[in-house]
Amino acid sequence: MQAELLSIGDELLIGQIVNSNAAYISRKLNEMGIEVSRVTTIGDNEEEILEAMKTAWQHNDIVIATGGLGPTHDDISKNVVAKFFKKRLLLDLKTLAHVRARFRSFGISKMPEINIGQAMVPQGFKALRNDTGTAPGLLFHQRQQTFIILPGVPHEMTFLMEKWVIPGLRTFYRKKLGSAILHRTLLTVGIGESTLAARIGNVHDFLDAGATLAFLPKTSGVRVRISVRAESATKAKSKVARIEKHIRDRAGNYIYGTDSDTLEGMLFQLLKKRKATLSVAESCTGGMLSMRMTNIPGSSKVFAGGIISYSNSVKIKELGISKKLIDSFGAVSKECALAMAEGACKKFGTTFSLAITGIAGPGGGTKDKPVGTIWIALAEAGHPTLARSYKFAGDRSIIRERSADSAMEMLRRRLL
Amino acid sequence: MQAELLSIGDELLIGQIVNSNAAYISRKLNEMGIEVSRVTTIGDNEEEILEAMKTAWQHNDIVIATGGLGPTHDDISKNVVAKFFKKRLLLDLKTLAHVRARFRSFGISKMPEINIGQAMVPQGFKALRNDTGTAPGLLFHQRQQTFIILPGVPHEMTFLMEKWVIPGLRTFYRKKLGSAILHRTLLTVGIGESTLAARIGNVHDFLDAGATLAFLPKTSGVRVRISVRAESATKAKSKVARIEKHIRDRAGNYIYGTDSDTLEGMLFQLLKKRKATLSVAESCTGGMLSMRMTNIPGSSKVFAGGIISYSNSVKIKELGISKKLIDSFGAVSKECALAMAEGACKKFGTTFSLAITGIAGPGGGTKDKPVGTIWIALAEAGHPTLARSYKFAGDRSIIRERSADSAMEMLRRRLL
Repeated sequence: MQAELLSIGDELLIGQIVNSNAAYISRKLNEMGIEVSRVTTIGDNEEEILEAMKTAWQHNDIVIATGGLGPTHDDISKNVVAKFFKKRLLLDLKTLAHVRARFRSFGISKMPEINIGQAMVPQGFKALRNDTGTAPGLLFHQRQQTFIILPGVPHEMTFLMEKWVIPGLRTFYRKKLGSAILHRTLLTVGIGESTLAARIGNVHDFLDAGATLAFLPKTSGVRVRISVRAESATKAKSKVARIEKHIRDRAGNYIYGTDSDTLEGMLFQLLKKRKATLSVAESCTGGMLSMRMTNIPGSSKVFAGGIISYSNSVKIKELGISKKLIDSFGAVSKECALAMAEGACKKFGTTFSLAITGIAGPGGGTKDKPVGTIWIALAEAGHPTLARSYKFAGDRSIIRERSADSAMEMLRRRLL
Repeated sequence: MQAELLSIGDELLIGQIVNSNAAYISRKLNEMGIEVSRVTTIGDNEEEILEAMKTAWQHNDIVIATGGLGPTHDDISKNVVAKFFKKRLLLDLKTLAHVRARFRSFGISKMPEINIGQAMVPQGFKALRNDTGTAPGLLFHQRQQTFIILPGVPHEMTFLMEKWVIPGLRTFYRKKLGSAILHRTLLTVGIGESTLAARIGNVHDFLDAGATLAFLPKTSGVRVRISVRAESATKAKSKVARIEKHIRDRAGNYIYGTDSDTLEGMLFQLLKKRKATLSVAESCTGGMLSMRMTNIPGSSKVFAGGIISYSNSVKIKELGISKKLIDSFGAVSKECALAMAEGACKKFGTTFSLAITGIAGPGGGTKDKPVGTIWIALAEAGHPTLARSYKFAGDRSIIRERSADSAMEMLRRRLL
């Protein structure tokens, strides 16, 4: 079972937006055991779309296109699809009623006329009702082949995938979807790609047919992805487990999680288990650490709150840091980081407090404290406060991200 | 002048990572007047790479590939490139010295042997020195055609693009890069796609040959992109200006910025001009608003700090909100939002304070206050405090983003 994705839209080719839709659809198809052979991105151009559709439809069981289904003049995809399959466009009354109802629900009684076009459906296609927008998805199934086109707006596309496309494909290809593909990614922190590879050893010694290993470096650490294809899900699982064990035996202390785990998620679980609470005091990260911790639903169980002490006066007034300390050592110093963490811990009455202070750049660096100099401190009631300095390379956002990651990793290691 | 991008890597086809590299490279090429005709994403598979390279090299002046240059066994791109161009791989001593020096700078005196492969360069190719990693870029130029391959790690790819690729292409194609492509995007907030299109009117009335208009809906608002191709940059600019004026005359009050402007950036400029300062009190957004404001270098000029009052006890203790108020109205209420904004304004002594409290979900909703119910308040010293309620659809992260956007928009309108 093989699929190709067609991402349609000039905005992709001029780099205005990032193609996150392709990543999402690929992930979903892989989970079902459908391999994505290729993603082709083309502009809102009839010839280009027709040519890409031709190649994709020749080589694949499934083609999923996204983009160009909106109501405006630059949305040409539906017409091109109808032309490719030599189908007439017919007004679909059910879809029209649905589009009208959406406008009414926004308090707009008269639907703009331009939106009538969204209810036109190529003959023989099924309109997939879109509860999150006005453009329906379109599905065509014939001789075991399926063509689908979805709107490019991410939350509309994901709605249609989950509500209609995934269940539909499972029904069409029930028999063929037997062979299982399984991926598992081990997330590491604090070790480089080649050092990690050397530790794990020659892959041919522990990978057999149908298994692959990939190293994916990211800002926050190297990820190691195990991919396995087997006759059944059970066999795939045991194969993956064998390979994972091999890697954990050699590099386990660098692995903080798997797959879609996040440092904040792991930290949340560890804090919850210990019935411990956390507060933060952030300077250069300006709320990023706090935002990451509160990304997790239910984080109020462990996360009390924080102080964004962006200015020195807030550090002095809210965290009880003496002006003298800042004058002597500077706001980016071990002493200030320690005092920030201790101040927050006391103020919020939490088990732990993390503090970050540093120079995220691009300005503000000095010879002694260049851009990328960060101090992170961890306070724990009844324990000595820990502080460490870091030197991060990269731009402002990379430095802020690495600072937040390192703070979380500091606390994670304390909790283990 | 036309280019195709080849994005290589299984991680893209299984949806593990989003192809942000293609967006970045497309943007840079467009800025130079080079059109990207297609982005093809393929896996780490020799046949697939060879086939995609063949098509791309046949139809384009420039091909830029990314990915698969790392030191580990799954990185096959360089070998495939050498095979495609029928070139032998030779050890490049300068590159080898550079890779060794990088390891030394990390305090690793002995370079892992696996990294020697990174210094192998196909005959006739130029190695592009990578100051941000161990894999050099590779460039091949022949008969007015250019092939380039870069590592897939985003910050390494951007370094090589800026340091070598963009200047190199400018030199190779100095004469051809005369014709100018210009894009300009108007960013709107608070108006839907079709209503906006209706206001702007029939595009054929104001777009002439070589000009296009595209509507791009996003979480935070619809973007309208004007694209113009003309013989010279001056002509393109005046064409764009004419179209922009037409749109602003009809929908100007919904436009908050252009191109890469952000709400936070516009707000920062407005606050700076007024010599005003801002503080925040965030509940459900947990630091997101503060993080957005401090994304901007130099934001300390206007941004004092904030309180993440995630728990009620922090709201009471730090923002001076009475327990009675929370008991009577709840933490998600007009009364609580007003008190949060006023509490923060007083505490931080700023000109303005923004407060956000709401239910971001997925849990915590009730019949009266379903998930997506948000209260936002704006306090200004010497003025009555303003509060508004919102009902946002979407998941936790969309609700949090829209809340932060709406808070910034509330203050922006006050400042205009």
